[in-house]
Amino acid sequence: QFRPDGSRTLPYGGIPTLLDAPQAPGPEGLEAVLVGVPMDLGVTNRNGARFGPRAVRAQERVGPYNHVLDTVPTAELDVADIGDVPFRSRFDLAMCHADIETFYRRIRDSGAIPVSVGGDHSITGPILKGLAEGAPVGCVHIDAHADTSGNYEHSKFHHGGPFRQAVLNNALDPERTIQIGIRGSAEYLWEFSYDTGMTVIHAEEFAEMGVKAVLEAAQRVVGDAPFYISLDVDAFDPAYAPGTGTPEVGGLTPREVQALLRGLAGLPVMGGDVVEIAPQYDATSNTAHVGTQMVHEILSLVAVRKRETGL
Amino acid sequence: QFRPDGSRTLPYGGIPTLLDAPQAPGPEGLEAVLVGVPMDLGVTNRNGARFGPRAVRAQERVGPYNHVLDTVPTAELDVADIGDVPFRSRFDLAMCHADIETFYRRIRDSGAIPVSVGGDHSITGPILKGLAEGAPVGCVHIDAHADTSGNYEHSKFHHGGPFRQAVLNNALDPERTIQIGIRGSAEYLWEFSYDTGMTVIHAEEFAEMGVKAVLEAAQRVVGDAPFYISLDVDAFDPAYAPGTGTPEVGGLTPREVQALLRGLAGLPVMGGDVVEIAPQYDATSNTAHVGTQMVHEILSLVAVRKRETGL
Amino acid sequence: QFRPDGSRTLPYGGIPTLLDAPQAPGPEGLEAVLVGVPMDLGVTNRNGARFGPRAVRAQERVGPYNHVLDTVPTAELDVADIGDVPFRSRFDLAMCHADIETFYRRIRDSGAIPVSVGGDHSITGPILKGLAEGAPVGCVHIDAHADTSGNYEHSKFHHGGPFRQAVLNNALDPERTIQIGIRGSAEYLWEFSYDTGMTVIHAEEFAEMGVKAVLEAAQRVVGDAPFYISLDVDAFDPAYAPGTGTPEVGGLTPREVQALLRGLAGLPVMGGDVVEIAPQYDATSNTAHVGTQMVHEILSLVAVRKRETGL
Amino acid sequence: QFRPDGSRTLPYGGIPTLLDAPQAPGPEGLEAVLVGVPMDLGVTNRNGARFGPRAVRAQERVGPYNHVLDTVPTAELDVADIGDVPFRSRFDLAMCHADIETFYRRIRDSGAIPVSVGGDHSITGPILKGLAEGAPVGCVHIDAHADTSGNYEHSKFHHGGPFRQAVLNNALDPERTIQIGIRGSAEYLWEFSYDTGMTVIHAEEFAEMGVKAVLEAAQRVVGDAPFYISLDVDAFDPAYAPGTGTPEVGGLTPREVQALLRGLAGLPVMGGDVVEIAPQYDATSNTAHVGTQMVHEILSLVAVRKRETGL
Amino acid sequence: QFRPDGSRTLPYGGIPTLLDAPQAPGPEGLEAVLVGVPMDLGVTNRNGARFGPRAVRAQERVGPYNHVLDTVPTAELDVADIGDVPFRSRFDLAMCHADIETFYRRIRDSGAIPVSVGGDHSITGPILKGLAEGAPVGCVHIDAHADTSGNYEHSKFHHGGPFRQAVLNNALDPERTIQIGIRGSAEYLWEFSYDTGMTVIHAEEFAEMGVKAVLEAAQRVVGDAPFYISLDVDAFDPAYAPGTGTPEVGGLTPREVQALLRGLAGLPVMGGDVVEIAPQYDATSNTAHVGTQMVHEILSLVAVRKRETGL
Amino acid sequence: QFRPDGSRTLPYGGIPTLLDAPQAPGPEGLEAVLVGVPMDLGVTNRNGARFGPRAVRAQERVGPYNHVLDTVPTAELDVADIGDVPFRSRFDLAMCHADIETFYRRIRDSGAIPVSVGGDHSITGPILKGLAEGAPVGCVHIDAHADTSGNYEHSKFHHGGPFRQAVLNNALDPERTIQIGIRGSAEYLWEFSYDTGMTVIHAEEFAEMGVKAVLEAAQRVVGDAPFYISLDVDAFDPAYAPGTGTPEVGGLTPREVQALLRGLAGLPVMGGDVVEIAPQYDATSNTAHVGTQMVHEILSLVAVRKRETGL
Ligand SMILES: [Mn+2]
Ligand SMILES: [Mn+2]
Ligand SMILES: [Mn+2]
Ligand SMILES: [Mn+2]
Ligand SMILES: [Mn+2]
Ligand SMILES: [Mn+2]
Ligand SMILES: [Mn+2]
Ligand SMILES: [Mn+2]
Ligand SMILES: [Mn+2]
Ligand SMILES: [Mn+2]
Ligand SMILES: [Mn+2]
Ligand SMILES: [Mn+2]
Repeated sequence: QFRPDGSRTLPYGGIPTLLDAPQAPGPEGLEAVLVGVPMDLGVTNRNGARFGPRAVRAQERVGPYNHVLDTVPTAELDVADIGDVPFRSRFDLAMCHADIETFYRRIRDSGAIPVSVGGDHSITGPILKGLAEGAPVGCVHIDAHADTSGNYEHSKFHHGGPFRQAVLNNALDPERTIQIGIRGSAEYLWEFSYDTGMTVIHAEEFAEMGVKAVLEAAQRVVGDAPFYISLDVDAFDPAYAPGTGTPEVGGLTPREVQALLRGLAGLPVMGGDVVEIAPQYDATSNTAHVGTQMVHEILSLVAVRKRETGL
Repeated sequence: QFRPDGSRTLPYGGIPTLLDAPQAPGPEGLEAVLVGVPMDLGVTNRNGARFGPRAVRAQERVGPYNHVLDTVPTAELDVADIGDVPFRSRFDLAMCHADIETFYRRIRDSGAIPVSVGGDHSITGPILKGLAEGAPVGCVHIDAHADTSGNYEHSKFHHGGPFRQAVLNNALDPERTIQIGIRGSAEYLWEFSYDTGMTVIHAEEFAEMGVKAVLEAAQRVVGDAPFYISLDVDAFDPAYAPGTGTPEVGGLTPREVQALLRGLAGLPVMGGDVVEIAPQYDATSNTAHVGTQMVHEILSLVAVRKRETGL
Repeated sequence: QFRPDGSRTLPYGGIPTLLDAPQAPGPEGLEAVLVGVPMDLGVTNRNGARFGPRAVRAQERVGPYNHVLDTVPTAELDVADIGDVPFRSRFDLAMCHADIETFYRRIRDSGAIPVSVGGDHSITGPILKGLAEGAPVGCVHIDAHADTSGNYEHSKFHHGGPFRQAVLNNALDPERTIQIGIRGSAEYLWEFSYDTGMTVIHAEEFAEMGVKAVLEAAQRVVGDAPFYISLDVDAFDPAYAPGTGTPEVGGLTPREVQALLRGLAGLPVMGGDVVEIAPQYDATSNTAHVGTQMVHEILSLVAVRKRETGL
Repeated sequence: QFRPDGSRTLPYGGIPTLLDAPQAPGPEGLEAVLVGVPMDLGVTNRNGARFGPRAVRAQERVGPYNHVLDTVPTAELDVADIGDVPFRSRFDLAMCHADIETFYRRIRDSGAIPVSVGGDHSITGPILKGLAEGAPVGCVHIDAHADTSGNYEHSKFHHGGPFRQAVLNNALDPERTIQIGIRGSAEYLWEFSYDTGMTVIHAEEFAEMGVKAVLEAAQRVVGDAPFYISLDVDAFDPAYAPGTGTPEVGGLTPREVQALLRGLAGLPVMGGDVVEIAPQYDATSNTAHVGTQMVHEILSLVAVRKRETGL
Repeated sequence: QFRPDGSRTLPYGGIPTLLDAPQAPGPEGLEAVLVGVPMDLGVTNRNGARFGPRAVRAQERVGPYNHVLDTVPTAELDVADIGDVPFRSRFDLAMCHADIETFYRRIRDSGAIPVSVGGDHSITGPILKGLAEGAPVGCVHIDAHADTSGNYEHSKFHHGGPFRQAVLNNALDPERTIQIGIRGSAEYLWEFSYDTGMTVIHAEEFAEMGVKAVLEAAQRVVGDAPFYISLDVDAFDPAYAPGTGTPEVGGLTPREVQALLRGLAGLPVMGGDVVEIAPQYDATSNTAHVGTQMVHEILSLVAVRKRETGL
Repeated sequence: QFRPDGSRTLPYGGIPTLLDAPQAPGPEGLEAVLVGVPMDLGVTNRNGARFGPRAVRAQERVGPYNHVLDTVPTAELDVADIGDVPFRSRFDLAMCHADIETFYRRIRDSGAIPVSVGGDHSITGPILKGLAEGAPVGCVHIDAHADTSGNYEHSKFHHGGPFRQAVLNNALDPERTIQIGIRGSAEYLWEFSYDTGMTVIHAEEFAEMGVKAVLEAAQRVVGDAPFYISLDVDAFDPAYAPGTGTPEVGGLTPREVQALLRGLAGLPVMGGDVVEIAPQYDATSNTAHVGTQMVHEILSLVAVRKRETGL
C-alpha cells in the first residue's frame, strides 16, 4: 500500500492481512476491526467459503485510498486485522454460531466497528446477535437471496436464514431493512421478508429502477439510525463473482454496487460483512478481488462517518 | 429442487438430469421433453460442445421456480429428461443430422414440445426439419452469428448455416424470424438473412435500442403463430459465457436475454434449444450455468403458454 | 461402454451413472450395487468431496472390460447404480452418519455387495457399522492417513477416525486390517492402529519394500475371510490425485495401487469404497478419473470372486 | 480468415501471427505494421505480460472484417506482423526501453503506422518517444490508471509513468490527451495529468456521462491532428479482462470501448497499442480475446483513415 | 534457443514455430520437416486435438540441445517447420485423410523425413500410407491403445484403427511393429495386432519387465530396416499428460519413454509423430510440454542417424 | 497445526505464515528463521516466482511433525517467520541482490539458520554471499539446471548463474557441491561446474543409480562440514511441480527427493532454500504444496542437527 512518500510496500510481499492492515490480538482499543470468519457449515450447495478470509488476505492492491469518497480508511481509523473468530469445532454448525456470537459480543463491548469476511452467510446471524441483540439495527442487505427462510433440514442455522434469525433475536429491525438483488428459484422461502415489512428489490426491478432510485430507497429505509451492511457476493452476476456457492444468473455489476455503497457515505454504519467467497470456484480470482474491494468500500464508509460526525 | 414442503433434494446429489426433471424413455405421453444432442461435428473452430448436455445435467440449483413468470415448469408440465438423441456415428456429420431429424419427427408425432441442449448449432437445422417441415414456424434466434451461410468446405451441414437450411427445407418462415445479437467478422456470410426478409438486430444496435425496443420487435416479428426459440450461448458476451466455440467480443448480458425471453411469455412457443456450450473452455462453469438458466426460462414459457391457453 | 457387437455408447452422452451401470431404485435383488455418498461434513481441511459421486458419474470411458483380471464386471454381475444415500440433513454430521448406517443395513439385508463413492472418509464408519456390526471384517485400507484418531473438536465422526469407530462398533477386525501408504504429520494420532494390532505400511516403507512385498503382507493380513477395501484417494501422490481435501506429498502411484488391488483377486471382498474426491481441486479431472478406475478395479474383484466361488 | 471466395483458413491452424496477417522482416515498404513487445520488467504487481504477444497471436477468429466500420483492414492496408522488438536483455528495464525506442524510430522512418501488443504499459513511453519525439501527438488513453507517476523505487521507467515520460520527452501533447476509465487507489499519483492539462474521465464519471458524451469529449480533445491510441486492458472490468497485472474493480465493458474506438473513425490515428495482457491470469482466455479484438478495432481505424483521406 | 555465442532468443518471443525451427513453404530441399496436422474428426471421446500443433508451437524452451544424445538436431539437420497439412474440409474425416496422404506423398517424394504433430491418432494411417505404401516399414508405437480396430460406427478412419489401416494398405509391417504401454478397457478390439504378429507390451508388463527389457524387445522387433515412431501422449500416465482425449490410468512416465526413445539412437528412423495433445484439458500445459520434448527426442534420432550413417 | 493436546488450529484459518510458524520482526534471538524472498527479476522465461512466498504461506497442513525423522521442528527450534527481505526496488535486479545480501548478513550475524522461500534461483547467489562469504560452504543443490552459467544478456545476476557467483564470491566450495537432477538443453552452459570440481548427477544418471547411491554420493561430497541445501522445484518432474518458470521433462519424484533430504539428517546444515515456485502456473497448487513440504523437510534437518549435536 502507498506510504506518505508515495512509495508502496510490495503488494505481493510479506505476511498478508485483510486490506494490508496492521495486526492486533483483539478489538480492544481500536475504532474498527477486520475479522475473518472461516466457517461454511451452513451452505446448502457448493462449499468452500471457509477459505474466503484467506483468499481476501491474499488479494493484492485493494486500497488504501478511496478516491470517490476521498478517504484512506486504514490510515484514518485505528483499525487492525485481528485474525479469525476462534472456533471450538469445525463440525458443529450451532457450536460455531455460539462462538461467533461470543466473539462479536466482545467486539461490541470494545466499541470497535467490525467489518467481517465470511464464511457463509449464516455467520451474519450470530454477528448481528452479538453486536445488536436487544437494540435492533437497520440493514442494507445486498444478495441474490433474501435469506429469511426458517427451519430447514432440522436446522435454523443454515445460510438461507440469518436475517430471520436476526429479527427473531431482536437484533435486526425489518422495517429498516432493505434487500437488494434478489432473484432465483427460492422466492417462496422469503415470506418472512414481506410479512415483517422488509423492503425487497429484485434483480429485475433493480434493472428497471436504476441504481439512483435504489439508492434513494436504501437511504429512506435505513434512515439515520445505526445500520449494518451485509454483502453476499452472489448478489453480483456470476460473470463478476463466479467463486461462490449458490450463484444466480442475472445479477448486479460491481459498478452498481459501488454506486450504492458510496451513496451511503455519511450514514451511521455500525458494521458490515462480505460473505460467500468460495475461492475453489474462482478460477480468475475475480471474486476474491471484488469482495476485497467491497470490504474496502465498507471500511471507507466507517472512515467517512468518523470524519463527518465521529464514530 | 424444492418440494412442496419446502425441503429440497441435494442439488449436488443423485443421478443428474436436465433441470433435475424426472427421466422417461421417450417423448410419448408427455407435454414437454428435455433432450440432449451431444454432437459437435459442425463446428468451425473450438470443438467440445458434444459435452454440453452433460455439463447442463451436472449444473446444480437452476429452477424449479421462476418467480418473474410465477411458474414451476417441471411441476406444471408433464415433462421429462428423455436422454440424448441416439446417433449411429460420431464421425459423420450428415448421418448425425439424419438421426436428429428422425428423432425430432418422433417427438413431433408424440405431441410433446422439446427443449434441447446442444451440441453445436448445426443441430437446429434437422431439429426444425423434424419438427416443422412443411409448416414453417417463426423464430426468435439469439446469437452472435446469423447462421444463414451456404455450402462451406463441401458441406451444408456446418454450424454456420442451420437457419438457411431450415428455410430451404420449408421449416422456417424467414419473415417471422428475428436474429438478435449479431456481430463479429462474418457479416458478409449472412446475405440470405437479408434476402429472405429476416429481421437482424446487431449487438451494437441492441445497445442503442435497449431491450424493450428489441422485445417489441421480436413480438412484432413472430406474431401470434407458433415459433421456436434458438439460443446460441455465444450471443452472450464472453465474460458471461466463455465456454463456447466461436466467442465474439461485445455481446449481450444475461439480464438482457432474460428480459427478452420473459417478454415472450404467453406466445405460442413450439420448441427451443440452447446450443454451443463447450465446457472445456468454461473454467468457471458460468456458461453451463447461464445455459441451464436459459433452458429453464424457455421451459417456463412453455408452462406459461399451457396455463394461459393450453398447449 | 462396449456392447456385445463391439459398438459403444457415446462415452460423453446420456444420463451419467457410476461406471455407466444401469439404474435401480434400491439394492434388493441385485448382486452388487454402486452407491454415492455425497457428504463431506467430516473433513478437517478443504471441503468439496460432497461433489465426488457427481464427478465419478461424469467420468467417461472407465470399464467395462478389465483385461488384467479378464472380467466385465457390469456384465457379469447383476449390478446397478442405485443413486445416493438419502440424507435428512446437510448440516448435521451425526445425523448423516445415522442415515448412512441405516442405508447400508438395508444393503446388507438385500445381500448385495456395495461399492461406494464418497464423500469424505468418515462415511466408512457407518458403512462398516451397517454392513458388518457384530461380525467384524478384515480390511485393506489404502490411505495417507490411518484414520484411527479419537474424539476431535467435540466429535468422533470426523474423517480422521472411521477405522477406530469401526473397531469400537465391532464391525472391523483390527488384526485383519492393513493400512497402506500412511505418511504426513498426523502420525501420533494413529496409536489406536498400533495398539489394536493393525498392520501399518508407511509410504516410505512401501517404496522400500516394493509392491509385491506389500501385496503379500496384505494377503497375509486379510487371509481368506471376508474383507472390505477402502481407498482414500489421498493415498496417491498429489500429482496423480490433486483433487482431495488433505493431500500429502510423497504418495503411491496408480500403477502400484492397481497391482495391489488386482493381487487381491479371488479373495472374498464384501464391499469397498473410494473416498475423498474433491473435484473443485481437480483442475485436470485426473482425480475423478483415477478414482473411477479404482471403483472399476474393486467391482472387478467382486466379479472375479463370483466367477471363482460364487458370491 | 475469410478469403474472397468465402472460404476461410483454419482458425486454429498454421503458424500464428497477429490478426493472422502475413509476416514481414521489418516495417519498410508497409503502410502499417503489427508488432509484439514482450517485455514486462516495468510491472509493479503481477507479472507475465511478456507473454501477451504470444497470446494474441494464438487467438483465433478475430477479424478480418469489421462490419460496423465496413472495412477489412488486413486486406485494405499493406500490413504485416513484423515480429517482436529485438531486446538485448531480459533483465534491464532501461536497456529494454532504449531498444524499443530504437525500433520505433525505425518504424517512424519507414512511414508505417504501428499497432503494438505489449508487454506492460511502460513500453508506451519509448514507443511514443521513438515515433513522435519533437512533434508531440494527441492521445486517447483508455486505462484504469493515468500512468503519469514520477520516479518510483529508483526508476522512471515503470508502467505507472509512460505518459509523464512521453510529455517530458516532448512526444505527447497533454492538452490533446484524454484518459478514460481511471479508478482505484492510486489517484494521488496522477497530479501530473491535472497539472499538464490532460482530460481525465474516471470510471464512475464514465458511468454517469454515458459513452456518447465521453466520445464527444475524446473527439474534442484530440481534434483533427495526429493522435495515438493506447489501451491498457485493465481499463475493462476484471470480469471481461481478468488476465492482467493490476486489475481494478468497476471498469468499462467491451461494448463501451468498442463504441468509443469506432467513434474515432476518420480521425488521423498515427499508431496504437494494446498492453498489459498477462495470459497466466486469463483462465478463460477472454483477455487475450478482447485484446485481440481491440487490435483489430485500432487497425480498422487506420484502414478507414486511409480510405477517407489517405494515410 | 541457444545461439553459438551462448545467447538465446526470447523463449516467449516472436512468431512461434515447432521447436523454434525456421519456416519453409514446403519439404523440398530439406532433410527433415516438422509438420502440424490439426485434425481431430477421428476421436471417439474428448475432442480438441486439432489445437495440438498450435500448443506445441507455443511451448517455450524445448531443445535445441539434446545432451544425452549429444546433438542439436535443428542445427545439424536442414529442417524447417513447413506449417500444417492443408485441408479442404473441417467436416469430413475421409476427405481429411485423403489430404494428409497427398501431402505426405509429397514429403516422401522430397526425400525429407517428417516429424509430425497431431491431431488425433487417425492421422497416422494416411501418413504411413503416403510415406510407405508398397514398402511397409517397421514401427515403434507407444500408446495406451493398440489402435488396430476395424470399422466402427460406419467408418474405418477413426483414431482406433490407423495401424490396421496401415497394414492393410501395405504401409506397415506388423511383424516389425511393437506396441508399448497398452492398457484400458478396449483390449478385445486389438485382435488384429495379435493375428498379424505385432508385439504388444501392456502397461502392467512394462512395469514388470523394466525399461531395458522393453527397449531390447523394441530393438529386436524393428531390426535395422527403416521404421517409424508413433507416440500417442495417452501412453503417459494422465498425471504427466492430462491433456488428451482418451486418457487411461496407470501409464508410462516420461523418464521411461525418454529412455526408450534414446535407446533407438542410430537406428534408421524414417519419420515419426506425436499425437492426441488436446490443450483444452491441459490445465498445467504439461501435456504440450512433454509432447514437444518427444518431438525433440524423435528429431534428435533423425540427427543421430544422419551423423552416424547419413540419411 | 497440532497442539500438544491433539487439537489443531484451523489449517485454513488465521493470518498465514510459513509453516504456520510464529512471526518475529527479525532474526535476532532465534535459532532458525523462515524468510520469503519475493523477487523474480532474474528469470529467463516464465515469471511469477515473486508470488512464491505468498503461495507457501497460504499452503495448509504441512508439518508440524516429521514422522520419518521424528521431529517437530517448529516446536523444537526457536524459529519464526520473519517476513520478507525488504527491497528498495522491484525493477532493478542488481539492487535486489544487494538488498538480499545485506539481509542475510544480518541473519548470519544473528546466528540464526535461515530456510528461505524464493523467488527465482538467482537469490541463492546473494544469500550465500551474505551467509558464507570468505568461508565457503558445501552444498546439496537439487535442480534441473546447474546454474553455473556466466554473464548473459549483460548481467551476471540471472537465475542461471548463482552457483558460479557463489564460488567466485568465495562463499561456495565447488568440491563440496553436488548438483542433482540436471537435464534439459542447457548442458553446455555448465562448464564451470565441471571445471571447478562440482559433482553433477544428471536426471538420467539418477534413474540409473537409484536414490541410495545418489544419497551416498551426496554424503561423501558434503562431508561433515557445514553445507547449504538449495532446492529448485524444477528438479521435480513437471507432473509434480508444474508451477515453475523453466520446467524440464523427465525429473525427480518427491519420494526420491524426500529420501535424499532425510538421508542428510544429522549433518551440519547451515541454511537452505526452496525456489522457483510460480503459482500462476500451478493449477492444482501441487507445486506450492511440494515446495512447502520441502521447507518442512529442510527445517526438520536443522532440528535433528540441534537435537544430535546442538546448532
Ligand atoms: Mn446470502
Ligand atoms: Mn446469496
Ligand atoms: Mn449459432
Ligand atoms: Mn454463434
Ligand atoms: Mn482417509
Ligand atoms: Mn487420507
Ligand atoms: Mn496502464
Ligand atoms: Mn492500468
Ligand atoms: Mn492412439
Ligand atoms: Mn491412445
Ligand atoms: Mn535453479
Ligand atoms: Mn532450475
